[in-house]
Amino acid sequence: MRWRIPVSLALVPHALALWPIPRTLKAGTGFLVLSPQFSINVNVADPPQDLLDAVSETEGFLKTDKLQRLVLGRGSSDAGALTTAAVLPSLTLTLQNTLPVLPISAEAVKDVANRSEGYTLSIPGDGKAAVLSANSTLGLFRGLTTFSQFWYDLNGVTYTNVAPVSIVKDIPAYVWRSFTPTEEGWCSQSYSRTVDSCLTLLAICKSFPVADVKRTLDAMSWVKINMFHWHIVDSQSFPLSLPEFPELAQKGAYSSSEVYSPADVQEIVSYAAAHGIDVLMEIDSPGHTAIIAESHPEYIACSQASPWSTFANEPPAGQLRLASPATVNFTAALFTAAARVLPSKYFSTGGDELNTQCYAQDAQTQADLKKAGKNLEQALNTFTQATHGALANLGKTAVVWEEMVLEHNLTLSNNTVVMVWISSENAAAVAAKNFRLVHAPSDYFYLDCGAGEWIGKDPEGNSWCDPFKTWQKSYTFNPLANISAAQAHLVLGGQQLLWTEQSDPQNLDSIAWPRAATSAEIFWTGATRPDGAPLEGTEALPRLHELRYRMVQRGVRAIPLQPQWCVLRPGLCNIDS
Amino acid sequence: MRWRIPVSLALVPHALALWPIPRTLKAGTGFLVLSPQFSINVNVADPPQDLLDAVSETEGFLKTDKLQRLVLGRGSSDAGALTTAAVLPSLTLTLQNTLPVLPISAEAVKDVANRSEGYTLSIPGDGKAAVLSANSTLGLFRGLTTFSQFWYDLNGVTYTNVAPVSIVKDIPAYVWRSFTPTEEGWCSQSYSRTVDSCLTLLAICKSFPVADVKRTLDAMSWVKINMFHWHIVDSQSFPLSLPEFPELAQKGAYSSSEVYSPADVQEIVSYAAAHGIDVLMEIDSPGHTAIIAESHPEYIACSQASPWSTFANEPPAGQLRLASPATVNFTAALFTAAARVLPSKYFSTGGDELNTQCYAQDAQTQADLKKAGKNLEQALNTFTQATHGALANLGKTAVVWEEMVLEHNLTLSNNTVVMVWISSENAAAVAAKNFRLVHAPSDYFYLDCGAGEWIGKDPEGNSWCDPFKTWQKSYTFNPLANISAAQAHLVLGGQQLLWTEQSDPQNLDSIAWPRAATSAEIFWTGATRPDGAPLEGTEALPRLHELRYRMVQRGVRAIPLQPQWCVLRPGLCNIDS
Repeated sequence: MRWRIPVSLALVPHALALWPIPRTLKAGTGFLVLSPQFSINVNVADPPQDLLDAVSETEGFLKTDKLQRLVLGRGSSDAGALTTAAVLPSLTLTLQNTLPVLPISAEAVKDVANRSEGYTLSIPGDGKAAVLSANSTLGLFRGLTTFSQFWYDLNGVTYTNVAPVSIVKDIPAYVWRSFTPTEEGWCSQSYSRTVDSCLTLLAICKSFPVADVKRTLDAMSWVKINMFHWHIVDSQSFPLSLPEFPELAQKGAYSSSEVYSPADVQEIVSYAAAHGIDVLMEIDSPGHTAIIAESHPEYIACSQASPWSTFANEPPAGQLRLASPATVNFTAALFTAAARVLPSKYFSTGGDELNTQCYAQDAQTQADLKKAGKNLEQALNTFTQATHGALANLGKTAVVWEEMVLEHNLTLSNNTVVMVWISSENAAAVAAKNFRLVHAPSDYFYLDCGAGEWIGKDPEGNSWCDPFKTWQKSYTFNPLANISAAQAHLVLGGQQLLWTEQSDPQNLDSIAWPRAATSAEIFWTGATRPDGAPLEGTEALPRLHELRYRMVQRGVRAIPLQPQWCVLRPGLCNIDS
Repeated sequence: MRWRIPVSLALVPHALALWPIPRTLKAGTGFLVLSPQFSINVNVADPPQDLLDAVSETEGFLKTDKLQRLVLGRGSSDAGALTTAAVLPSLTLTLQNTLPVLPISAEAVKDVANRSEGYTLSIPGDGKAAVLSANSTLGLFRGLTTFSQFWYDLNGVTYTNVAPVSIVKDIPAYVWRSFTPTEEGWCSQSYSRTVDSCLTLLAICKSFPVADVKRTLDAMSWVKINMFHWHIVDSQSFPLSLPEFPELAQKGAYSSSEVYSPADVQEIVSYAAAHGIDVLMEIDSPGHTAIIAESHPEYIACSQASPWSTFANEPPAGQLRLASPATVNFTAALFTAAARVLPSKYFSTGGDELNTQCYAQDAQTQADLKKAGKNLEQALNTFTQATHGALANLGKTAVVWEEMVLEHNLTLSNNTVVMVWISSENAAAVAAKNFRLVHAPSDYFYLDCGAGEWIGKDPEGNSWCDPFKTWQKSYTFNPLANISAAQAHLVLGGQQLLWTEQSDPQNLDSIAWPRAATSAEIFWTGATRPDGAPLEGTEALPRLHELRYRMVQRGVRAIPLQPQWCVLRPGLCNIDS
């Protein structure tokens, strides 16, 4: 169906509080008050419980957000208009197709090509009910998220100043919109490249405690991020407890309380799915596996070799003996054990920062290579075939870091998804090899850059990926730079990443938010705003301020991007104003 | 008195959990358990209430810190030794002189030259009572702080592994050890130099809410910082409510709830003093005063002039009309109103980043200068004489930023304290002019550097003082670099600073801690550790980890400096290991 567009609808006002901005949007300038008896009516036969839960959560936000407008006077001048404004009695949710109704949780973990995230939303300005419709419960969830962002508070009155609203069809520009607060098992990594750090946070109190992960998932869902890239283990810690390999966490976790039990993983995966988020778990290999030596020294080369910087990008050194058949079998079984209980169609096998010096000095690897009559690259190919094959047997698509296609000559299925991290410029090379890719470039999207060197005895050292990536810089990212039109279909989307050598629950939110929302908009909204103009920071900033203030109201410790003086005076703190 | 040093006392163990490390310290390697009935006995006649409160707080920390040792196994291997260890029954506090006993609060706000912060502490290893003695309650407070850092937890047993301990005399090397989480009134500043930002945090919910300030004062006291530099107002907001000038906050604060009432100020000042901290309030002048135009446009030149970057280092532009006699009188009265109710002997009048373009285009200032027959420098001298004179009338010493002595030719009392911020290299020039100085160099001690540009429409911009100042970099600071022995007495101490354009309660702790502790040790401990070796990061890091973990246990959101893998293996994550 199509919504009738009232005459008063116009281009989006300057500071409309939506993030990401819908791809289509018309809005007015009228005031509309939310009825104190406002209700959300689910016009869906046998509605799934997670849809009902999402409705309840949305109703909760409408009651508790209490965000005043971010203008001088904080909306006090609206008081008069509110006394005569129309009152919105309800929002009705409908599904537009006749297929069996699946829960949000089921829709969210489909292959990205088959996820239906679009929705249509109408908020009349005359007191008639609002209507949200979609082809799936996941689309309804996205629409609820949008609906919840319209509302301000003034003296207990909940209202919008942009009625009526018509969003004819808001469908994401890219199917893969992720965030990697790489819950990398509370290890952490990546001296010179950072990619394999895990969320040290988690390391401290059971990796990131489940509550911190859930809060992060909440914030992700508010900006329609649909993938959680969970780099759950790394060189320093193995917090993932697997029934088939209990020794890995027993000996590799920081402590028995700093472990993700199978129940914890299921809780997180279920929570994510109910919030429209698929979980891409990563067990990095063959590098970044030093901690496995605690339980299986036989599988690890150059374990804690010194100096670590010769054998790894971060301490401690240690890599899977990829030329050893026993190690190959172990790794394939490990991936199977981890992936088989996950609903996602994707699983990441890592593949970054492989160090050849580690293998050159490892007698067993040299013997294994000699025995097999292979060089290291050939052995890596065998390793990859076997480990990816294990995932294929489960119907899972492998996800790898860019080195696996750009630095090694492997036989990889072109179904493989490649994460581009070393430089944004490498996306073109990945696309040229006809691989699907996810943008995760350190030069735009690494949230931990700029926080200084954490390696000891290096007083003049800075973070390897200096400078800090401001939201403004991230927001200039162009997903199709150097990508031809014919290759554009290979670009699945993108994600911001947080490696956590210097993070834990104390600063998780403040590092991630609101900056991680910038890629969420780039990959949802795409190249242009509803008015046809390209995405541009000056327009975006007031909306990002609103998102940030709303996040704080909802308990996420997002940081201010500017002094409040600037927030209340859009543009006056621009460099040229 | 001198403590008898048992034979087993030796140089400090590697990871002794003290920060700052005492100037004299001998410790053993024995285990000593804190008695479940452990008590602190105050052997002081008519002990002041704040001393008793400090004792209670210390007893609380001993019960609740519950910090496990930061070694592999987290101290589990200590279990056997603890079963046979001696038990410490009590700590006795004594004063060593016969002067009238003053509260900590009174001792903490004396002229820095007259503060007595030293203490002597003995913790026998044989079950005899520990003894803490000092010449003042403030010294006892410092000693209690040290005492509280010795203790670990293992399965509910509180113990140390470095008994016996003898600290013959721990007296700070420098009298001025400060932190400037410049509660600058929740404004924020300093585009190109940052110095005048205020804690935007405060701006959001009543500047920094009083609770956040108190928590910061707590953390400061744990590392023996003795000055809180409270940059309470700035260009963007005037949250300081003064009975004599109510209009300044009424019109200049972000909202009526984002104001420090006189009661709030007194609460903070009292809380600080009871924790051994003097409050140096700053009302920056004549620059960084744009917000005063909201209530007194007659006193402000170039109010919100555009482009702001021509007239100020941060938006908005606006400076006191320093050539106007009425403005001079207003400013002197303002300083008097703010300073007269504060117990501190110090008050900062600011003086940074004066913009001459602002005055060149201000017709009134040009007329005022012409009428007085003065040039701008002469008028600034008159302004300074009058405003500093107002403080002198209250018995207060003026504190200024370095420009007032290095960039302007003013007649200033040599009693003035000068804060060196633009560059550490400028300290020598200040000393050469025979002014007392406090090190606050942006190239070592600015905590906000490296977090990106916050000015709008500047996607490639980074923070003006990039890169991020790591604790390791800060820790290399030498207070006496380029200072002659004859000038050394001019160096009062130093402080780390946080300007808060991009801070608020969400990230206050994580930006400040544990980094702000580095200067606390530099200026307490001085050039050498108790074993005579110079301060050096590799030795310091394990102690700083312990401080950080202890802060987290006490509710301060200090961030991890390294992955826990490194924390538990001192040295193995060094760059050369």
